Amino acid sequence: MHDAASIIAAKRDGRELSGAEIDWVVDSFTRGDVADEQMSALAMAIYFRGLTREEVSRWTTAMISSGRRLDFSHLGRPTVDKHSTGGVGDKITLPLTPLVAACGAAVPQLSGRGLGHTGGTLDKLESVPGWRADLAPSEMEEVLSDPAIGAVVCAAGPDLAPADRRLYALRDVTGTVESIPLIASSIMSKKIAEGTGALVLDVKVGSGAFMKKVDDARELARTMVDLGNDAGVTTTALLTAMDAPLGLTAGNALEVREALEVLAGGGPSDVVELTLTLAREMLNAAGIDGIDPADKLRDGSAMDRWRKMIGAQGGDPEAQLPRARHTEVLLSEADGVVSGLDAMAVGVAAWRLGAGRARQGDSVQSGAGVEWHAKPGQTVSVGTPLVTLHTDTPERFASAKEALSRAWTVSADASSEIAPLVIERIDVLSG
Amino acid sequence: MHDAASIIAAKRDGRELSGAEIDWVVDSFTRGDVADEQMSALAMAIYFRGLTREEVSRWTTAMISSGRRLDFSHLGRPTVDKHSTGGVGDKITLPLTPLVAACGAAVPQLSGRGLGHTGGTLDKLESVPGWRADLAPSEMEEVLSDPAIGAVVCAAGPDLAPADRRLYALRDVTGTVESIPLIASSIMSKKIAEGTGALVLDVKVGSGAFMKKVDDARELARTMVDLGNDAGVTTTALLTAMDAPLGLTAGNALEVREALEVLAGGGPSDVVELTLTLAREMLNAAGIDGIDPADKLRDGSAMDRWRKMIGAQGGDPEAQLPRARHTEVLLSEADGVVSGLDAMAVGVAAWRLGAGRARQGDSVQSGAGVEWHAKPGQTVSVGTPLVTLHTDTPERFASAKEALSRAWTVSADASSEIAPLVIERIDVLSG
Repeated sequence: MHDAASIIAAKRDGRELSGAEIDWVVDSFTRGDVADEQMSALAMAIYFRGLTREEVSRWTTAMISSGRRLDFSHLGRPTVDKHSTGGVGDKITLPLTPLVAACGAAVPQLSGRGLGHTGGTLDKLESVPGWRADLAPSEMEEVLSDPAIGAVVCAAGPDLAPADRRLYALRDVTGTVESIPLIASSIMSKKIAEGTGALVLDVKVGSGAFMKKVDDARELARTMVDLGNDAGVTTTALLTAMDAPLGLTAGNALEVREALEVLAGGGPSDVVELTLTLAREMLNAAGIDGIDPADKLRDGSAMDRWRKMIGAQGGDPEAQLPRARHTEVLLSEADGVVSGLDAMAVGVAAWRLGAGRARQGDSVQSGAGVEWHAKPGQTVSVGTPLVTLHTDTPERFASAKEALSRAWTVSADASSEIAPLVIERIDVLSG
Repeated sequence: MHDAASIIAAKRDGRELSGAEIDWVVDSFTRGDVADEQMSALAMAIYFRGLTREEVSRWTTAMISSGRRLDFSHLGRPTVDKHSTGGVGDKITLPLTPLVAACGAAVPQLSGRGLGHTGGTLDKLESVPGWRADLAPSEMEEVLSDPAIGAVVCAAGPDLAPADRRLYALRDVTGTVESIPLIASSIMSKKIAEGTGALVLDVKVGSGAFMKKVDDARELARTMVDLGNDAGVTTTALLTAMDAPLGLTAGNALEVREALEVLAGGGPSDVVELTLTLAREMLNAAGIDGIDPADKLRDGSAMDRWRKMIGAQGGDPEAQLPRARHTEVLLSEADGVVSGLDAMAVGVAAWRLGAGRARQGDSVQSGAGVEWHAKPGQTVSVGTPLVTLHTDTPERFASAKEALSRAWTVSADASSEIAPLVIERIDVLSG
């Protein structure tokens, strides 16, 4: 017979929990027999003491077992998904999903909404008129099964790892989000439960990311890669830089527009580079050889998939995307070379302009956000436009400008080096 | 504007909380605006990060401010109380309270009930027929004001540090009891709120105590002494040994009987020694000079106070104390000298016999408990009675005997040294 106080005290004192203890505490929490105040104390003890590889694996399995696990093994095509830990201007899912489907894989992508300074994929897609995030499992199955579409981005249903949903809401208000094993098991329980056969993780690291330090990002990536492979999901991870924001836009419709540029064969070079790198990782993880995703961008087949994917979820791919009612342009006040553009500041500015939400359930402005015209490495002069702010609510300009007031670093020295986008690759064999 | 998640995260990350943050979080918890799951996470963060002297002082003040603070400064006599952190066979409050009153101090002693292997003073006194623990503040005042009585032992009312009451119930189920600053502030918030002018702390250390290590007990004592003196209560502490149980009995009526022996001028030497030592500390803290409490035991005035004190709360001091319906005697199986008697084992046995409770609200047996006939240092032979078990429910004998199976250490070597009872004294100037 287990009891919650003893299990909490055991973890607090640094003892490894048994599999039976973990199963019991997660199951009892799901049923409401372990109270929120006990689970939050346990989460704080885990924050300080960590979880061993065996513990985090069992914990994740217990989270998955709290709900249903989807299965797409009957599709006859490999399934593969990508998850990003979240960055500013990170719209990679938008061009990547149809691109990988165009290469022959099925992509079951359960996504979330944004909170705070990073946007959510569902919020971005909802700026496409008519598009619906909520699909029944049968609808999801139907779209995935269609070899002419084969890609779906939708909200996770309530029966997918419900224990994790409850635990995440609890961690959010109890200062226990920042635990690497709990982050890893939260992400991986949902990704394993969604039924993908392979998974590529984009673990962001830098000032605009949740993980500020490479060591922490590496530990998170390593934990998730192990969890995925232990659960039979071929999983690899890339650590990628998130000091400067990705591309040239942050905001819902603004980012869809940029994704469309990439699908049309153009787009900012960093977004294209990361999209292709992740596509190659995903194809490799899915066991699909001999196809270069760059060809699928060039020949229009990725764009064609996008249209079908959007249409299958009620969206009109030809419709005009929303634009904010007000814009304001900020100009450079110095001559020199942009040596830094702070992702966090840009994310906060976009959020304040209305692109993000402060609380779950708040609505977002489709057209709001930040568009920047100069990236690190570019030369600017006094009067060069640096950024355009977009919002429906112009009273927000002031606080957005305040957030951006120290976002740019312009230096006289042109020799500053731009760090590479992909920092490190982690797979089951590395490390 | 404060928010709970940020305060929890700050403590988690090792930052010192401001006075305003502590006031806000305790007040909001009292009003229910900070949720239990947030307070338990904060308590766990405090377990790992501790509290500075400033923080624990402010925390304690906030706990006191959540209710009313009694004031007996108008009595015209010094008030002094004693608090023990809990040990097995620790009935010292029973003879000590009337003894110190007989020496001229007023003793306002708010006590608790037992939980687990240590008994509670109120449970012990409730074995006296008719005695009531629950007094209205006006009744408490009346008894204290009467110079012929001047001592009251009763339950703390619901308006005394209510935030501590809620927090303690929460800590009990969330593995966060074992935090020295939280223990210190819980004890001291109640003792300061009860309105005593001086306080002597008996901090138990050893296998039968909550604090197993002298260093931890010293830290707890130091924290409490500082809290008391900072709040204007003259406070000192003794660290006393709790490896062997105190006296010769553990159990409610059994301990009252032993207390009566002490008040009659007899009783086990360790109980007499600790009673007199603590009485001298209390008189010293209260500023009462020139009275030797040993005289008050000898001349019967302490016993006289006991009778009045019991009578004032409805008890009949002449009534027969309850006896358990069944007893069983265990005999020594070896020849030699008792070199150890494990307090924890004795406490658990008494508890299992019915003297204690497993959950708050359970009832206890007045007559149940353990009476031992040999203390460390005494010579025993095969067949010497070691212990008498008392219970109304004889089916409990087996599990009590199991608890006691390794309680005695009998060695051939007679030279084993008995450790002193008082280990160390801590006052505002020491350390």
